[in-house]
Amino acid sequence: MNHRMIARTVGYVLLVEAVLLLLPLAVAVYMHEAVLPFVITQAAVAVPGLLLCFLPVRSRVLYARDGFLIVSLSWIFVSLFGALPFVIGGSIPSYVDALFETVSGFTTTGSSILTEIESLPRSILFWRSFTHWIGGMGVLVFIMAILPLANERSMHVMRAECPGPEVGKIVPRARNAALYLYGVYFALTVLEMIALRFGGMPWFDCVVNAFGTAGTGGFSILNGGIGAYNSLYAEIVITVFMLLFGINFNVYFFLLARTFKPIFKMEELRVYLITAVSSMLLIAWNILPIYSNFGTSLRYSTFQVAAMMTSTGFSTADFNVWPTFSKCILFLLMLMGACGGSTGGGMKVSRIIILVKKTRADLMRLLHPRSVRVVRLDGRRLDDGTVNAVSLYFIVYLLIMMVSTLLLSFSGCDLDTALTASVTTLSNIGPGFSAIGPTANFAFFPVPCKLLLSLLMLMGRLEIFPLLLTLTPSMYRRR
Amino acid sequence: MNHRMIARTVGYVLLVEAVLLLLPLAVAVYMHEAVLPFVITQAAVAVPGLLLCFLPVRSRVLYARDGFLIVSLSWIFVSLFGALPFVIGGSIPSYVDALFETVSGFTTTGSSILTEIESLPRSILFWRSFTHWIGGMGVLVFIMAILPLANERSMHVMRAECPGPEVGKIVPRARNAALYLYGVYFALTVLEMIALRFGGMPWFDCVVNAFGTAGTGGFSILNGGIGAYNSLYAEIVITVFMLLFGINFNVYFFLLARTFKPIFKMEELRVYLITAVSSMLLIAWNILPIYSNFGTSLRYSTFQVAAMMTSTGFSTADFNVWPTFSKCILFLLMLMGACGGSTGGGMKVSRIIILVKKTRADLMRLLHPRSVRVVRLDGRRLDDGTVNAVSLYFIVYLLIMMVSTLLLSFSGCDLDTALTASVTTLSNIGPGFSAIGPTANFAFFPVPCKLLLSLLMLMGRLEIFPLLLTLTPSMYRRR
Repeated sequence: MNHRMIARTVGYVLLVEAVLLLLPLAVAVYMHEAVLPFVITQAAVAVPGLLLCFLPVRSRVLYARDGFLIVSLSWIFVSLFGALPFVIGGSIPSYVDALFETVSGFTTTGSSILTEIESLPRSILFWRSFTHWIGGMGVLVFIMAILPLANERSMHVMRAECPGPEVGKIVPRARNAALYLYGVYFALTVLEMIALRFGGMPWFDCVVNAFGTAGTGGFSILNGGIGAYNSLYAEIVITVFMLLFGINFNVYFFLLARTFKPIFKMEELRVYLITAVSSMLLIAWNILPIYSNFGTSLRYSTFQVAAMMTSTGFSTADFNVWPTFSKCILFLLMLMGACGGSTGGGMKVSRIIILVKKTRADLMRLLHPRSVRVVRLDGRRLDDGTVNAVSLYFIVYLLIMMVSTLLLSFSGCDLDTALTASVTTLSNIGPGFSAIGPTANFAFFPVPCKLLLSLLMLMGRLEIFPLLLTLTPSMYRRR
Repeated sequence: MNHRMIARTVGYVLLVEAVLLLLPLAVAVYMHEAVLPFVITQAAVAVPGLLLCFLPVRSRVLYARDGFLIVSLSWIFVSLFGALPFVIGGSIPSYVDALFETVSGFTTTGSSILTEIESLPRSILFWRSFTHWIGGMGVLVFIMAILPLANERSMHVMRAECPGPEVGKIVPRARNAALYLYGVYFALTVLEMIALRFGGMPWFDCVVNAFGTAGTGGFSILNGGIGAYNSLYAEIVITVFMLLFGINFNVYFFLLARTFKPIFKMEELRVYLITAVSSMLLIAWNILPIYSNFGTSLRYSTFQVAAMMTSTGFSTADFNVWPTFSKCILFLLMLMGACGGSTGGGMKVSRIIILVKKTRADLMRLLHPRSVRVVRLDGRRLDDGTVNAVSLYFIVYLLIMMVSTLLLSFSGCDLDTALTASVTTLSNIGPGFSAIGPTANFAFFPVPCKLLLSLLMLMGRLEIFPLLLTLTPSMYRRR
């Protein structure tokens, strides 16, 4: 392993965090709020960052496992330092709670331990939502767009980082890809801010809610969530943008390049939209008895399906009281998640498509042992490696879900809480059912559970394997 | 497809059912109860059975998919006819309810729709428990031991029927294998009857409870279940025999052959026993606050772990009120199930071992792409086909579980009920949590749910693939 190069890259990431902290600092100055939480944190993160950056390196070669370690350590250290403003400012006195909130922010989960949000300083609320935005595209994609690291080896990092089973090969060089992704991300975020402002939402709220949507995070700055704005316009805007941020970003490249044919050929996009619309209609019909009319139930179901499926986790209704059928649909959407190559979490629509196709092909092989069946996506034949990696992902995902549900249940919470807590963190969504429903929060979990949930959030955000392998001893064994 | 040969084999199976019905008929005569339910059923099942048996066949060659169809149709028709005594005698007026109960019997599930059991005629109770015993070893293994079908082609049937990922190759010829299995099964059942009788249990109860244990079924003839005997001795005997019937029957062959070395080498047996003991201890410790002392909680936990893990489903305590941690352990045991090659249900311990080993090997390959890793069981290298079939089984099992949970939730039951109802039927266990706990029953489910649950029981008992493929159109397509 190239320890020095790994340490140096993590150092770069920490320096970027120090720079990013200038934004909440500016908010604090503008709002006449305490600046110390940010200044101290900046110093604390910049010093080790600088020291690591100037570490002399012998070789610049990085292998897959170096990449795994870089992303794992980057996300962990960025979160460890990012939690400091909450503790120093006194907004979240317990460091473990602050860490949970920060990990939830950077991983774009949106699960919160806060019971009272509105009384917090604006600069702290800004930092909290800003972590979503930073996390959304991945600290490292961000880094690659800025720092001149974009050569062959950074593709390893890219592979470990990029959501979805396959990195689109539209833009060959990692640095250019990162710049493109970042440009689309930035443009969509600004568009959403403007669209929200049109509805009369205060500028500050427009900014933080756009951050929460863009990262598919879900932190809200109102105790009552997005529903508290009581604005159909805002809900529609946020629904549309949640769905947009859940789409494979390749679609936007094609749109910019004015080549529409590949977009229509994308099976993932089709399944994503069909699943979203049919879930919205089914739930609207199922919850009709609770609400006064179909319009109201469609309003709630549409928003909630978009929020859960894209792993944003905003809420406008207490879906905890919805019938089991609706909750079951939401749960399955939480497992599935958004499209690969988006900021959304979960297993990703493309993985589910490949999994179903592979399963069908394997079953057919039982009937006709000598037949050869290939799995295709968007008309292209997938190689065995990709297809098997998808099965592996599904199996590992569910095994981790089972083990963590067992561990969480030890805290004494009910089964629905334990089960949905592991899924909502592993899929980076936010709320779950029962004790962690949209009107509740994660504060009641004991410290070991909060640390486990933080680990699950990080694991989910890093597509499980990099962090999971980092935890195995054979990662560090010489061959 | 060899339609005539398939029909003829199903005909044989029906004839065997007609013969087996003589036993409950004898009980009815002895107890001076109504004989008509059995006589009419015998006639109804014998006539089509005879007609099919004398069907002239052109070819005796059977392929894998013929085998799938034979086992699927056999279990379905045996259940359809086996439900008649309950309806004719008026014990279960609704045919769908009677079918559910019969499928639950033959598949050795033990889920019941009966609210009041003790008032039923003894002959009906005998038939109900006898279905467990018949189902236990599989109607077709039974058939093969009796009818002279044991040549090469019956191995196809064997492959579709035999529980576990691999049929032990100890006894090469299918007919001999069936005879051996049947002998061990018979001997163990009689041993349990005698052991129970020693504790002072009435003979009739000894017989039906031994049937319930041997098939790992779980129907009880007391409203209060096994706990109602309030006999520590009976609970210990049943616990021991549940665990014995959950062991791979190859172990008994080795014991009979006095070769003990392979037994110590069997990883499945080791994992089975270690899992059982550690679950018993963990639950006993977790439920300690509910019961007066460690002895009592260990008594309940031991029995319940053995009952759930072996997929028997007997109960001596209302585990519905146990803490979530204990319920979580029970739920995972329900998914795992007993050893392959036993009468138990679930995914089977050997499959879980192979799955974990394969997953570990695949993850290691991500770190060291050029390394070759083989999966071994009991020191022998497993071929890729076996290993991949295990992944496929796990994936299909969980996908079916998710879809059926969604469908069941439509009935309006809560999430725990829907989830555990699909798992308890697919794993052939019996009770679940919440509304289908050990003190409750399945009567409240609407008719479509009962039919779905019956299908899940059949699917689980036939190791999923044969029945699943029977439901796909491409099974019947000419190549």
